[in-house]
Amino acid sequence: MSEDYSTKGAYVTGGEFTRDTNYIQDRIVADTNPASYSSENNNSKIGHPDAGVSDGAQLWPVEAGRYRLVAARACPWANRTLIVRRLLGLEDALSIGLPGPTHDARSWTFDLDPEGKDPVLGTERIQENYFKRFADYPRGITVPAIVDIPSGAVVTNDYPQITWDLSTQWKQFHREGAPNLTPSDQLEEMLPLIKRIFTEVNNGVYRAGFAGDQNAYNDAYNRLFETLDFLEERLSTRRFLMGDHITEADVRLFTTLVRFDPVYHGHFKANRNKLIEMPNLWGYARDLFQMPGFGDTIDFEQIKAHYYVVHEDINPTQIIPQGPALDNWLEAPEREQLAETGPWLDGTAPDEVRPEERVQSGHNPMYPA
Amino acid sequence: MSEDYSTKGAYVTGGEFTRDTNYIQDRIVADTNPASYSSENNNSKIGHPDAGVSDGAQLWPVEAGRYRLVAARACPWANRTLIVRRLLGLEDALSIGLPGPTHDARSWTFDLDPEGKDPVLGTERIQENYFKRFADYPRGITVPAIVDIPSGAVVTNDYPQITWDLSTQWKQFHREGAPNLTPSDQLEEMLPLIKRIFTEVNNGVYRAGFAGDQNAYNDAYNRLFETLDFLEERLSTRRFLMGDHITEADVRLFTTLVRFDPVYHGHFKANRNKLIEMPNLWGYARDLFQMPGFGDTIDFEQIKAHYYVVHEDINPTQIIPQGPALDNWLEAPEREQLAETGPWLDGTAPDEVRPEERVQSGHNPMYPA
Repeated sequence: MSEDYSTKGAYVTGGEFTRDTNYIQDRIVADTNPASYSSENNNSKIGHPDAGVSDGAQLWPVEAGRYRLVAARACPWANRTLIVRRLLGLEDALSIGLPGPTHDARSWTFDLDPEGKDPVLGTERIQENYFKRFADYPRGITVPAIVDIPSGAVVTNDYPQITWDLSTQWKQFHREGAPNLTPSDQLEEMLPLIKRIFTEVNNGVYRAGFAGDQNAYNDAYNRLFETLDFLEERLSTRRFLMGDHITEADVRLFTTLVRFDPVYHGHFKANRNKLIEMPNLWGYARDLFQMPGFGDTIDFEQIKAHYYVVHEDINPTQIIPQGPALDNWLEAPEREQLAETGPWLDGTAPDEVRPEERVQSGHNPMYPA
Repeated sequence: MSEDYSTKGAYVTGGEFTRDTNYIQDRIVADTNPASYSSENNNSKIGHPDAGVSDGAQLWPVEAGRYRLVAARACPWANRTLIVRRLLGLEDALSIGLPGPTHDARSWTFDLDPEGKDPVLGTERIQENYFKRFADYPRGITVPAIVDIPSGAVVTNDYPQITWDLSTQWKQFHREGAPNLTPSDQLEEMLPLIKRIFTEVNNGVYRAGFAGDQNAYNDAYNRLFETLDFLEERLSTRRFLMGDHITEADVRLFTTLVRFDPVYHGHFKANRNKLIEMPNLWGYARDLFQMPGFGDTIDFEQIKAHYYVVHEDINPTQIIPQGPALDNWLEAPEREQLAETGPWLDGTAPDEVRPEERVQSGHNPMYPA
């Protein structure tokens, strides 16, 4: 979703930053019969692997090549989808459009593409694809958004649900060896954890950075670090959040952690300490970063450019910091001893990233300039 | 001096922040005969222990109780004077007025004092004391400023010179055991070092934070960290900048280092790394902090409030970060092994800070809330 809090994607009330959690809740599913779905588990801030169908939402069929995932590398919510698509090997089934990092009030543009147009959708702005769906679309123009290529219309931007559906609904297109990121016997423990990570960490950093007054900021800061302390402790005995295996929960925490020192620490004043000062979280973040499918989706230059340029309200100079030094992301995580088995549940690591999807050299310490 | 770059104390030209280095260059001296002074060593950005008299400047006699040093704890340039006054034991000879951390365009105020007036000068703003000296004073209203109590007029705000003069001109009022901070046999090495610290570090952080464009910022950032790397290396074999003993050079570096992680790292985007990530500089800073006369002058709450509230141009929300955690300033520096002798040249450590000059509890980890 857009992090531009001046759009309709979010707003500030009584000093507190509040995220608009109403999205286009259509889903792309293996079974398009609505009767197959309960009405439970809907409209959650975190989605659900067994979600129902929201009122008025449509079901679209899973189909290879029909949809385009539009996901700016800068955006942490879009980043989730880039990681899960890589882990599950959906590259051939679901292509990606990659808006550039900065934008004006009309939201994300395809300014990095030849002639400033997405080569498949042919649009300059994802806003055009929203308007093809709803001519007077009133809410935030956000990524990730999945577009129906034939019509050019946005199918869904319901990011809390999209990654679950990539895992559970797109199974027929998963690569051989795609890991199970949503183990059903762990959901009872995983869903509350994911919810806490969303409210306190993923969105918590925004609540700190966009606080309208000192009290709202203080409250957000305290909540954020209380949960980071909890996670630091949890990761002292577990290689990953749920134990030996990488799950959806790790994807959701990683996209915030990787942005923590480059952006949230300074720009959002989440500055009790840097990530690198929390040894378990920092080792855990490096462990994930160095796995295929995680670090290879990260463009630190785009991440920094996005926040520091778009959020003119909190960085009026729009100057982008040169720091922090990032080579330390390649240091050995030394966390394998915490696990008895390998990281991929019922599967294997994804292949190396395809050359055409590789992050630009110099934008990630894995790809030096 | 004021860090409010919107005052006349500084300006931005061609993207680069430029500090106005013209001050009221009167001096308070042991010998008021102008013929005793050469015309050399004047108007330097770093002052000189054997400075001459600038054109038009007056010489005032050193006298116990006649002057008041106005020095906001928040301000790094004023902080130098608070440290040197403590190290030399000038508390009885030279009283201090302490403006609060935040102010408007009319500069520092005595808002922390009863009825908002300095109890000795009787003024609400140091601006009034500048106007008593020059009714139409056109330059920045800065601290440190030394005021002639009988007339209420500012004598000098020439901060590069003030600390040298406290060392060399105020000798008759030094405490017994006052250390020599300006050893003449080391000046040849010390003065270029002090100059580099001023241009690249003391003022370098401001050049980064107040850069008018990305290029000016990048240049300032690179210069700053190049010199911090040089200092990190220098301090790998020396306990203090000049070796075994604390000198004026250490005072000048310390006041920037102590503000680095709380302010400059985030607010001024000096963020290649935190101070705590440079082991020699960090151990050195803690070593000084834990000496009487250094850490006891530091009010972290005032420091943060000053920068984050006054610099509305770069922090429009005026929200003050809660971080960073500061208890680590009390960790053992473990640098004594680098020196063969104690830290005080020809002298001893100052006494503990007087109760009436102690920083407020909770504003410094030495004085827990």
